[in-house]
Amino acid sequence: MRQELHSLQVSTRGKGLVPIDRAVLAWVRQSGIETGLLTLWCRHTSASLCVQENADPTVRTDIERYFEALVPEQPGRYIHDDEGPDDMPAHLRAMLTNVQLSIPVAGGRPVLGTWQGLYLFEHRARPHRREIVLHLMGE
Amino acid sequence: MRQELHSLQVSTRGKGLVPIDRAVLAWVRQSGIETGLLTLWCRHTSASLCVQENADPTVRTDIERYFEALVPEQPGRYIHDDEGPDDMPAHLRAMLTNVQLSIPVAGGRPVLGTWQGLYLFEHRARPHRREIVLHLMGE
Amino acid sequence: MRQELHSLQVSTRGKGLVPIDRAVLAWVRQSGIETGLLTLWCRHTSASLCVQENADPTVRTDIERYFEALVPEQPGRYIHDDEGPDDMPAHLRAMLTNVQLSIPVAGGRPVLGTWQGLYLFEHRARPHRREIVLHLMGE
Repeated sequence: MRQELHSLQVSTRGKGLVPIDRAVLAWVRQSGIETGLLTLWCRHTSASLCVQENADPTVRTDIERYFEALVPEQPGRYIHDDEGPDDMPAHLRAMLTNVQLSIPVAGGRPVLGTWQGLYLFEHRARPHRREIVLHLMGE
Repeated sequence: MRQELHSLQVSTRGKGLVPIDRAVLAWVRQSGIETGLLTLWCRHTSASLCVQENADPTVRTDIERYFEALVPEQPGRYIHDDEGPDDMPAHLRAMLTNVQLSIPVAGGRPVLGTWQGLYLFEHRARPHRREIVLHLMGE
Repeated sequence: MRQELHSLQVSTRGKGLVPIDRAVLAWVRQSGIETGLLTLWCRHTSASLCVQENADPTVRTDIERYFEALVPEQPGRYIHDDEGPDDMPAHLRAMLTNVQLSIPVAGGRPVLGTWQGLYLFEHRARPHRREIVLHLMGE
């Protein structure tokens, strides 16, 4: 049994879902670990991780719209607004989703379902550079 | 240290919570692993996993009602509706809950609290066959 | 590769976020494990775990207010109210956040981002004693 660690950098261009499957799967393959547990950790409080449909891109539009409505940007609604109207909504959106995912690995691949894609969910309006730590334990 | 993998099939009968404790606990026991980490991964984007009260069944009714209101089925509200009015709400409900759970195992059992039950949360109106991958690492 | 288990007790004083970083980091340090995976499991259905900004305390006020509005206490709204008006909202708030977190450990520390703090999120109005199981696997 052994473990590997990696830091994945993701550039975002404003709010929405950024696919990260390709980079994650490539790293898992490269590790040579066939069976194990893969953990993704997003090191931010205004971006998160999620699993969503990888086929129809309109799903991503619907998701972004839904979260805009669920956690509205509204002047005076939040005390904390140091970095603008999207600051506190970004924290809340990150709380309602996840900053962490752990996925079993079998046959050298995370056991994602056919329609499951891995995404970084950016919650800030401006572009950001995000860091995801990947940890893999297995053999 | 060793690991075990298993595929658990769960049949659902429309929206709502389906208890999976019994099957999960039986598999952990059978593995012979006393101390470790158990991970559950739901391989779908319209069903999820959750931990909820295992005593009063009305809790499950309240949960289903709450999520119906939080993520309403509404014609024209979502772009993505290939599989009907419950399609996009199902994806959103799955995002707001979890498709993954990792639970420490001690004394051959997941360390669930007295009132904690494990459930598959079905978000589609029609019956489905769902697959949950179980991964256990320990000794 | 080895593993450690610990039970962390946290006293809460009504709804809101209680920082737990200090206790968690101290235990990880004490374990002597340099690289691995840390899992936190909250053994309750009316308290949860979350990752949030650790700098500006008004973030915590905004979070509590947001969840009060998202899951309102309202007489007659929920069937399950055995323990009062905050009973069912507490279960729903726990579902919308998390009872579990798994964080990679590197250099003897969980890889939290600069602004990430770990919190127990109490959802009941009265003080409670909460138990979080810590599990660490690595070397």
